[in-house]
Amino acid sequence: MHFRSDNTAPAAPEILAAVSSANVGAASAYGEDTWSKRLNAAYAELFEHDCFVFTVATGTAANAIALASAAPPWGSVLTHRESHIECDEGGAPEFFAGGAKLALLDGAHAKIDAPAVEKHLRILRHGVHSPLPAAISISQASERGAVYRPDEIVRLSATARREKLALHMDGARLANAVAHLGCKPADVTWRAGVDLLSFGATKNGALGAEAVIVFDSKRAEEIARRRKRGGHLMSKGRYAAAQLLAYIDKGLWLSLAARANALATRIGAAADVFLSAPVESNQVFIRPGVEGLKELRAAGVEFYDWGAEGSGEARLVVSWNQDEDDVEQLCALLGALKRSVVQF
Amino acid sequence: MHFRSDNTAPAAPEILAAVSSANVGAASAYGEDTWSKRLNAAYAELFEHDCFVFTVATGTAANAIALASAAPPWGSVLTHRESHIECDEGGAPEFFAGGAKLALLDGAHAKIDAPAVEKHLRILRHGVHSPLPAAISISQASERGAVYRPDEIVRLSATARREKLALHMDGARLANAVAHLGCKPADVTWRAGVDLLSFGATKNGALGAEAVIVFDSKRAEEIARRRKRGGHLMSKGRYAAAQLLAYIDKGLWLSLAARANALATRIGAAADVFLSAPVESNQVFIRPGVEGLKELRAAGVEFYDWGAEGSGEARLVVSWNQDEDDVEQLCALLGALKRSVVQF
Amino acid sequence: MHFRSDNTAPAAPEILAAVSSANVGAASAYGEDTWSKRLNAAYAELFEHDCFVFTVATGTAANAIALASAAPPWGSVLTHRESHIECDEGGAPEFFAGGAKLALLDGAHAKIDAPAVEKHLRILRHGVHSPLPAAISISQASERGAVYRPDEIVRLSATARREKLALHMDGARLANAVAHLGCKPADVTWRAGVDLLSFGATKNGALGAEAVIVFDSKRAEEIARRRKRGGHLMSKGRYAAAQLLAYIDKGLWLSLAARANALATRIGAAADVFLSAPVESNQVFIRPGVEGLKELRAAGVEFYDWGAEGSGEARLVVSWNQDEDDVEQLCALLGALKRSVVQF
Amino acid sequence: MHFRSDNTAPAAPEILAAVSSANVGAASAYGEDTWSKRLNAAYAELFEHDCFVFTVATGTAANAIALASAAPPWGSVLTHRESHIECDEGGAPEFFAGGAKLALLDGAHAKIDAPAVEKHLRILRHGVHSPLPAAISISQASERGAVYRPDEIVRLSATARREKLALHMDGARLANAVAHLGCKPADVTWRAGVDLLSFGATKNGALGAEAVIVFDSKRAEEIARRRKRGGHLMSKGRYAAAQLLAYIDKGLWLSLAARANALATRIGAAADVFLSAPVESNQVFIRPGVEGLKELRAAGVEFYDWGAEGSGEARLVVSWNQDEDDVEQLCALLGALKRSVVQF
Repeated sequence: MHFRSDNTAPAAPEILAAVSSANVGAASAYGEDTWSKRLNAAYAELFEHDCFVFTVATGTAANAIALASAAPPWGSVLTHRESHIECDEGGAPEFFAGGAKLALLDGAHAKIDAPAVEKHLRILRHGVHSPLPAAISISQASERGAVYRPDEIVRLSATARREKLALHMDGARLANAVAHLGCKPADVTWRAGVDLLSFGATKNGALGAEAVIVFDSKRAEEIARRRKRGGHLMSKGRYAAAQLLAYIDKGLWLSLAARANALATRIGAAADVFLSAPVESNQVFIRPGVEGLKELRAAGVEFYDWGAEGSGEARLVVSWNQDEDDVEQLCALLGALKRSVVQF
Repeated sequence: MHFRSDNTAPAAPEILAAVSSANVGAASAYGEDTWSKRLNAAYAELFEHDCFVFTVATGTAANAIALASAAPPWGSVLTHRESHIECDEGGAPEFFAGGAKLALLDGAHAKIDAPAVEKHLRILRHGVHSPLPAAISISQASERGAVYRPDEIVRLSATARREKLALHMDGARLANAVAHLGCKPADVTWRAGVDLLSFGATKNGALGAEAVIVFDSKRAEEIARRRKRGGHLMSKGRYAAAQLLAYIDKGLWLSLAARANALATRIGAAADVFLSAPVESNQVFIRPGVEGLKELRAAGVEFYDWGAEGSGEARLVVSWNQDEDDVEQLCALLGALKRSVVQF
Repeated sequence: MHFRSDNTAPAAPEILAAVSSANVGAASAYGEDTWSKRLNAAYAELFEHDCFVFTVATGTAANAIALASAAPPWGSVLTHRESHIECDEGGAPEFFAGGAKLALLDGAHAKIDAPAVEKHLRILRHGVHSPLPAAISISQASERGAVYRPDEIVRLSATARREKLALHMDGARLANAVAHLGCKPADVTWRAGVDLLSFGATKNGALGAEAVIVFDSKRAEEIARRRKRGGHLMSKGRYAAAQLLAYIDKGLWLSLAARANALATRIGAAADVFLSAPVESNQVFIRPGVEGLKELRAAGVEFYDWGAEGSGEARLVVSWNQDEDDVEQLCALLGALKRSVVQF
Repeated sequence: MHFRSDNTAPAAPEILAAVSSANVGAASAYGEDTWSKRLNAAYAELFEHDCFVFTVATGTAANAIALASAAPPWGSVLTHRESHIECDEGGAPEFFAGGAKLALLDGAHAKIDAPAVEKHLRILRHGVHSPLPAAISISQASERGAVYRPDEIVRLSATARREKLALHMDGARLANAVAHLGCKPADVTWRAGVDLLSFGATKNGALGAEAVIVFDSKRAEEIARRRKRGGHLMSKGRYAAAQLLAYIDKGLWLSLAARANALATRIGAAADVFLSAPVESNQVFIRPGVEGLKELRAAGVEFYDWGAEGSGEARLVVSWNQDEDDVEQLCALLGALKRSVVQF
């Protein structure tokens, strides 16, 4: 039973088909092909706003390039202590941003809020001696599966505007968040004040397709330079573009995400008292203790331990094509585990 | 008639099929899938030597990551003045290598040789004040379509060893070079003293599959770190790996390259006195003058101008799936152009 | 009354005299002069160990260069949350180290200990995805004036050795720490396991003289390269070297530091209940509240606020040449302030 | 006889006296002292224009910081092949500029001109693939002792303006150039279109005092950040500032330079046919052959070989305090050498 990561799933048939369809005839290289050229318009329609879409190979690249263009080398990016950019990207943001710093904030369920940002900004600064707060980065959904409501983002962006900070969103699981909220993509991005978006499709059904999206042409030129410089301007751009087009065609991205969310919710209900975070996307965090995790593993459930050694916490991720039987079996195992714990 | 770049071609059916075949079931992420895990062994067989294969998104990334691990930030990489790493990668090598320098050498047909390297090394150096020569980078085939013979590489690597320089090969068109030489892949790589290889499949039939290959495990750990940090460790690694496996299966890479080479040779014969470089791969460089190029363009031939403004030189690239009729038509156009020039 | 910083003091007469004495005749440039060449031997005697002394312009440069040579770009440096390298160096460590991260630990009085390091190391890591812990950096004395005893450093270095971390010491106020401990310089540096030392003389009586000191020749070559590359290899090296030689001649550095420490201790006694950290060097931290600080300022005492806005905390620093009358007056003001607070 | 470098000379008595005079009382740290605060006004008077003066430790730092603020990481800086920033700074410009490239131009006597710049700009560029020409850097005087006339700089800056390039001047020997030209400092800097100036005093009589000077406040903030980040914001800023104030007081800088220039001219006359560059500053380049250099060395003349191994060329540098007897003796040796060569 694979609950390790949504990265373990294959690609959705619609997206693979789009890649195959794109494999015909000559096409200009380096983003001048017809697929790539349709991206901006297609995403502008989705987001109800001008969009500049820069495909890159990974979510790490999307985040790193976006942040590098949002913060100078002497700047700091305010983000949650458990964010992907801090914990899981091998220092890519610092690399691309020429040594900019991540300033780590606390917040429930890996979300940060405006007061946390403001508290950080009240630390005494001394001109050039101190890092310059330059950007805020939030993950939608968060690293603990929680989702920012539009009003929460609006409050963050109001602070950002006032303090001249850019607002970046790591949308590796944006589909799951939007499906959960039932809102428009715009409601949690530009309309809520997001300046730079890492848009991920890989976890939710693509073979490998990620993008930096900016909503203002003034930000585009630098992203283009940084993408090339990072080795992320693909020569045969049509394949990534075809994936990103198919991904949002006829709402595919949201229907895939909604299915995964629903199954996660079912697991969350079964996990019940073990839950260590609310289930608002396709991730379920449980803390049944070290022994409990051992039992689940012994029963064939694959997952990642979470937190520090011996925390007894785990992350279970539901993929777009997750087998329902696996979900049922996991729910049963969690039910049994709860009963056994109660007996003690 | 597309002779602009081999990057404009689609993927070979065998390689697309491999991607489709890989799209089944769950697979571990980040290079722990079964396709990725077979890469080292498959390439070890191809190269008759231990291989450590690191897939990345682009040739630019392969070059930049390889060079960054071969030269310290205060080092210099000796390369041809017209090399891809100098002219076409938006500064990626300098970015990944933390500001290392490219030292530009001259040489016929974009190849460098041991005497050119030695001449450069005889420039007076003053300890920490001077850049530290740290690596040599050659392109096989070169940016002007020329191919290094094994003995030429051996002579370069002998100098490299003596001077403690690493030897890197940009193998974006390695297939074309090996097909031209009719040698073993080993003969122009590790056996000739190459330490780090950028292995390209995209131009010659893949959708998008490039790799850094090193032949010594001691170099592997740093490449792994630099790949992640550059945003090039793909989450669903199976698709790039499947491409790289299919690419070398049953000699596909060489048969695709041999076909393109043969068509290029045919064009070269037709171009004749216009040739500005020998035709040893799938690239043809001609210098029929500004007016001559205008005529070709007017006749529907697509290509890149080369060199400086008004040089009257052009590059014609033959793709793995180039239409033979297009080649015939181009040959006819070149023939007519020659005659018209002779008349003047 | 200047208690803002020990950087506001002029240079000690002995050190200025050394600079004047060095201003005679021709001397080889870039560290080949006779003063610079005596540095290693003079410091080897002081530290009872081989020493490789690299003068640089500032303590920021010393820290940044030392850390860059101790941690790879993908590494992390474990340090206290309030350390100078984190808060006051404008991102210089990240810049020199190519984007390495600072991992922030807690600990009383801006000191960290082995358990805090070990707790950090127990956070689950995932190979190349996670920053690689590479070095520990401690400040002697700390940013809150506290001093590490030799046994505390030994415990840290034991952990460092076991976990393959380098141990760096920011010794901007090493003189004050050694004077406080009454130990040998070796006891808190190499003998306790310190690998790289930022040795500061500026705050304690030099015009401007800082150095990176390493105790192992294997570390020297890279420091030399990084120093040049950072613009810190001075052409007329004799002046910085002359300062560093005079600074340790006949124990000058320790007698200057001891005097400042003694006056700080006197202030600490007067501050009494206001103290927010023990007085172990030439720094005194007090927390008399926002109103209390206003009164001190109104009375002409100059100092820095500390912590966050409105924390009501302040740092008072005693310089090597601090006027004793100023100290007396400050003590009187603190006494009055205590009494007024008690009345409320 | 020291003709190795002007960096071997001590400091002028007026400048050392200024340092001693500054060593009194408390002074605010980090450039807030009264000496530092007078710099902008003093240099504004000298340059007849607003000036923002940022002291740094070395000329290498001044160049690197200035160029980093003039070119983005993906930019290129056009400079002479033999420039100091290319050959003698250990890669500092690339380091500070985040991996920007130096594009090397040819030109007599290490000077470049507008046609050379324009020729470089005509190389075909392909958007993000190609480095972006971003700045021109010239050395006044050049690395071969030649001096740019105001009209030559004006022509370069006209091209720079048109092509949106910043114009940087490495003024490590600006005093010698201005003394040679007999012009106003403004005539070869801002008035001729220079945007960023590395102003050097060390070679011409300071202990160690260099600065980045910009003439437009818009450039100042970034320089300030980069200086701190490079570890070049000195805590006791008064000493460097006092040097820079004394250096230009009552024309000291020009009288020191004029004397050195005059002696160099005398040597140039004696060197005669050996001269390999015109003598326009305090540097003399001769090419008497390998044997000739051996003889000079045997006679006790100290100098640097120049160019490649076995070039038979040398650089002789005259310092501000050069002994006239040494000059006479050198002239006699050169005279004898010429006669012996003629005999062969």
